[in-house]
Amino acid sequence: MRTHYCTDLNETNVGQEVTVVGWANSYRDHGGIIFIDLRDKTGLIQLTCDPEDSAEAHKIADSVRDEYVLVAKGKVRLRGEGLTNPRLKTGAIEIVVDELVIENKSAPLPFVIGDKKVGEETTLKYRYLELRDQSMYEAFRLRSKAAIAARNILDENGFLEVETPILTKSTPEGARDYLVPSRVHNGEFYALPQSPQLFKQLLMVGGFDRYFQIAKCFRDEDLRADRQPEFTQIDVEMSFCDQEEVIKVAEDLIVAMFKACDIEVTAPFNRMTHKDAMEKYGSDKPDMRYGLEMVDVIDIFERCDNEIFTNIAKKPHVNRIKALKVPGADLVFSKREMKSFEDYVRKFGAQGLGYFQMKEDGLKGPLTKFFSEEDIQLLIDRLGMEIGDVVFFGAGDKKTVWDYMGRLRIFIAEHEKMNLVDPNKYEFLWVVDFPMFEVEDGRVKALHHPFTMPKDTDKDDVEDIESIAYDIVLNGVELGGGSIRIHKEEVQAEIFKLLGISDEEAREKFGFLLDALKFGAPPHGGFAIGFDRLMMLITKKSSIRDVIAFPKTQKASCILTEAPSQVDNEQLRDLHIRIREQVKA
Amino acid sequence: MRTHYCTDLNETNVGQEVTVVGWANSYRDHGGIIFIDLRDKTGLIQLTCDPEDSAEAHKIADSVRDEYVLVAKGKVRLRGEGLTNPRLKTGAIEIVVDELVIENKSAPLPFVIGDKKVGEETTLKYRYLELRDQSMYEAFRLRSKAAIAARNILDENGFLEVETPILTKSTPEGARDYLVPSRVHNGEFYALPQSPQLFKQLLMVGGFDRYFQIAKCFRDEDLRADRQPEFTQIDVEMSFCDQEEVIKVAEDLIVAMFKACDIEVTAPFNRMTHKDAMEKYGSDKPDMRYGLEMVDVIDIFERCDNEIFTNIAKKPHVNRIKALKVPGADLVFSKREMKSFEDYVRKFGAQGLGYFQMKEDGLKGPLTKFFSEEDIQLLIDRLGMEIGDVVFFGAGDKKTVWDYMGRLRIFIAEHEKMNLVDPNKYEFLWVVDFPMFEVEDGRVKALHHPFTMPKDTDKDDVEDIESIAYDIVLNGVELGGGSIRIHKEEVQAEIFKLLGISDEEAREKFGFLLDALKFGAPPHGGFAIGFDRLMMLITKKSSIRDVIAFPKTQKASCILTEAPSQVDNEQLRDLHIRIREQVKA
Repeated sequence: MRTHYCTDLNETNVGQEVTVVGWANSYRDHGGIIFIDLRDKTGLIQLTCDPEDSAEAHKIADSVRDEYVLVAKGKVRLRGEGLTNPRLKTGAIEIVVDELVIENKSAPLPFVIGDKKVGEETTLKYRYLELRDQSMYEAFRLRSKAAIAARNILDENGFLEVETPILTKSTPEGARDYLVPSRVHNGEFYALPQSPQLFKQLLMVGGFDRYFQIAKCFRDEDLRADRQPEFTQIDVEMSFCDQEEVIKVAEDLIVAMFKACDIEVTAPFNRMTHKDAMEKYGSDKPDMRYGLEMVDVIDIFERCDNEIFTNIAKKPHVNRIKALKVPGADLVFSKREMKSFEDYVRKFGAQGLGYFQMKEDGLKGPLTKFFSEEDIQLLIDRLGMEIGDVVFFGAGDKKTVWDYMGRLRIFIAEHEKMNLVDPNKYEFLWVVDFPMFEVEDGRVKALHHPFTMPKDTDKDDVEDIESIAYDIVLNGVELGGGSIRIHKEEVQAEIFKLLGISDEEAREKFGFLLDALKFGAPPHGGFAIGFDRLMMLITKKSSIRDVIAFPKTQKASCILTEAPSQVDNEQLRDLHIRIREQVKA
Repeated sequence: MRTHYCTDLNETNVGQEVTVVGWANSYRDHGGIIFIDLRDKTGLIQLTCDPEDSAEAHKIADSVRDEYVLVAKGKVRLRGEGLTNPRLKTGAIEIVVDELVIENKSAPLPFVIGDKKVGEETTLKYRYLELRDQSMYEAFRLRSKAAIAARNILDENGFLEVETPILTKSTPEGARDYLVPSRVHNGEFYALPQSPQLFKQLLMVGGFDRYFQIAKCFRDEDLRADRQPEFTQIDVEMSFCDQEEVIKVAEDLIVAMFKACDIEVTAPFNRMTHKDAMEKYGSDKPDMRYGLEMVDVIDIFERCDNEIFTNIAKKPHVNRIKALKVPGADLVFSKREMKSFEDYVRKFGAQGLGYFQMKEDGLKGPLTKFFSEEDIQLLIDRLGMEIGDVVFFGAGDKKTVWDYMGRLRIFIAEHEKMNLVDPNKYEFLWVVDFPMFEVEDGRVKALHHPFTMPKDTDKDDVEDIESIAYDIVLNGVELGGGSIRIHKEEVQAEIFKLLGISDEEAREKFGFLLDALKFGAPPHGGFAIGFDRLMMLITKKSSIRDVIAFPKTQKASCILTEAPSQVDNEQLRDLHIRIREQVKA
């Protein structure tokens, strides 16, 4: 129907007869001449309908309203002097319309496209209208380009994309499964996959050597923060490899995807051990766009004159005393603001938040009196305190200190008075050597998953056992991660034992994987990257919903289609289920 | 771990020290020297372990069993004269092993890899072992290549891949939905999509212009024949287009996918109207690799002397009398075989199956006596009967005649004595101008779907209304199809009326699509291609299960993971459902 997309036209087309199609983005009548900005996916072009050029086209133009679908034929000409619009790509030209067809009408829209103040109840109900916003289209264009780039580079590197099932078995990988009742098998259920983890390992056992998939995954979690019930991950697995080879594949992949979105990033990315990340940034996903590194000062506090601190310092294996120096903070933050930082960290378990200010006449603060002059000087030296700097102290059990000091670091960096975060930077970091286990309420749990290869299981404390597991972090967001997997039956059995999983339970939950390990499983490993999150970061959107065409709300509803919804009783009968009667409160 | 894949090695590597990894495919001890065929995804290479080269490697080799995972280091050398194996790509060389590591052991396999006689209860349970068969890997390699090619050509043509939801709303598109109970919304259910149809139309309303997706679709149908509960389709939609443009995109796509699999096919493909397909081949998906075209003879039978035929011939609008000439059939089929054809068509509603044989002395057969000499000659001329030919006649109501004569055509073509089907040919056909509706038991139904654009609704008989719908057929298999969609609210309302769908019902089922049509929907259309079926045809497999990595059985079970399975009562309670008590028979 068209000869050109709107913004494919430019000065070189002047004099040509063209046809463009799209939506009436705006409309104005100026001295009897009607100007319509016509919009297609590429952008806008001005249609000029002058009754002297075509009385008929002008008459039709007169009935055009916002978002009407138009087919316009006419000649391209330069706009008159002073009439160009530098904000439009096509701002130097216009189309003088001879023929105008209204291909479809539009009722008045329920909201103005691009208006950010409209509530999601409305924008999601009319998502197709929200998608007409140019910046939305651009985000999905980049998403498509990035996916293509990912596939091509993996294909070039000998990976096959293999589709694994969506209707599969409930496996306990942490989150709640979505279940699908079976019609054929009375009382039985499929589960939607939380990841293709087991299948990709089976493909390695099947000799596929290099697998990938851009895969839909499902978790029936409470949708706090920015989660979706279904999400997409780029899932990769390879055989006969070590961590270095996996990391190389992941880096090449990420670089290629950014390149497809016109962003240059360079590999290899920086690396940090999990231990260092926790000690220095209080997080296993530190944002490396800024400094603010925590420093250990437990040895100095051990000598101070305050029992709270000396008691904490007595147990350096389980406790930490950490200092976070914020350069120039004394020059920008009021006393009240400094106090508000303490209120902030209390929410995360801090008992308090001491701080010293570096004044012209030395280090000041209510706690300084507990320290010897030598130790005050040692603090100044170790932290490199200069006039105007503030140092905050966190003390307590290590997990709590890491957590709240890590959060304080981010809180301060993002504070409008500090503004340490450069939104145009992409700082990647591999966090490596993850612990194999974590102990929660006395229960040993796998930190990644129970198929992760341990480095060495011969440790007194299970928490000291490291695994060959790695996470990739971008700007403080965990993009993904992976591990080398266990490929020997006896190692897997040992890990299950450490996890307190009985043979019977292991058999029931992972029987087919254990079987597969019996029949010549190759060494293998891989990773997965959250594609939605990656695209959110690439397109600089604030929510993954902006890179998902038809997202669900916080309550896992699709307002547009009204899913989930009630279904016929007959359907339920076919599935051998009934709805549980609600107990009235 | 490796320096080369097995079959990357050839005579040019002779003298090089290499490392290969893989599985022990076979093993033999010959005069104290151990020969192991090592297998990776690319194929086999011979490892030679001679105690004189390395006593240690030989000793390890001695403990190797089938499917052990090995890392072998050694020098490439030419095999001795007379020892080359022309069936192997690497048959001219071998690796003299210095170092051999058993990376993992294998229990004896439950079946021999590649053995076609093993039942699926076993092969599917150990699917990962079945996948080790080279021809399986090759099928998935082609599947991956074809998918990449599809994405690249669509990307080049300006299409964006957009992911549409898997957790969506139950929509009535013919088949049964898979349902997913909602935890958050008590008593409500998501449905897995039967296709992304409505979403892709909404993307067009959203101005996305050109969309595609290689999408998972779900149908809870009885799995007769070769169906899977989940399948993959290549789904395409575009705006401001006509049928020709859509067909061009589909042809370019198909040509590119075949090319990626090293098969050259050329477009444009042949076309046939739906009417012609039914009249000539008795099928809307005729196999065009062979002739056997049906010819209308109702006018001749009208004049014959047999009331059965003359009565049928009186109603040419609803009845048909069709002739199927089979060249040379009289020379190969016995009388008993000809009779067996009658038994075959009776299964599909035929009352009988008359036939004439062209003998040296003219047309023979029990029915000839009912025809005048002129009409016998007319039959001979119209059908081009030559000595040895047989013509079969079908008479009755048109749908029945089309059906059984179409089946007879295939039955005869595939008969081992005729063997008209060339398995190496790829004959594509577009079947166009599909009827908009079909009437079943007095109920008007949409033949494609109710969003298909009718050509002209102004007909006395709804069955005469044609639609802008087209199917793509390959070798008698429907690969896919599509249509131009309705983009105007009033046309959609008219179609719902003809389908007997009330305003209220339409609102409830398709409310959001009807809403979308109000706000400036562009003209649009598209198509979908069954990717599993296409890959089955490309790889010449007999079942789609051979191109699905983890297929389900006829009973929709995954034998490997034992899905579906029973789940905890607690899970069901979270989902507000309970299992219906079984009524004992």
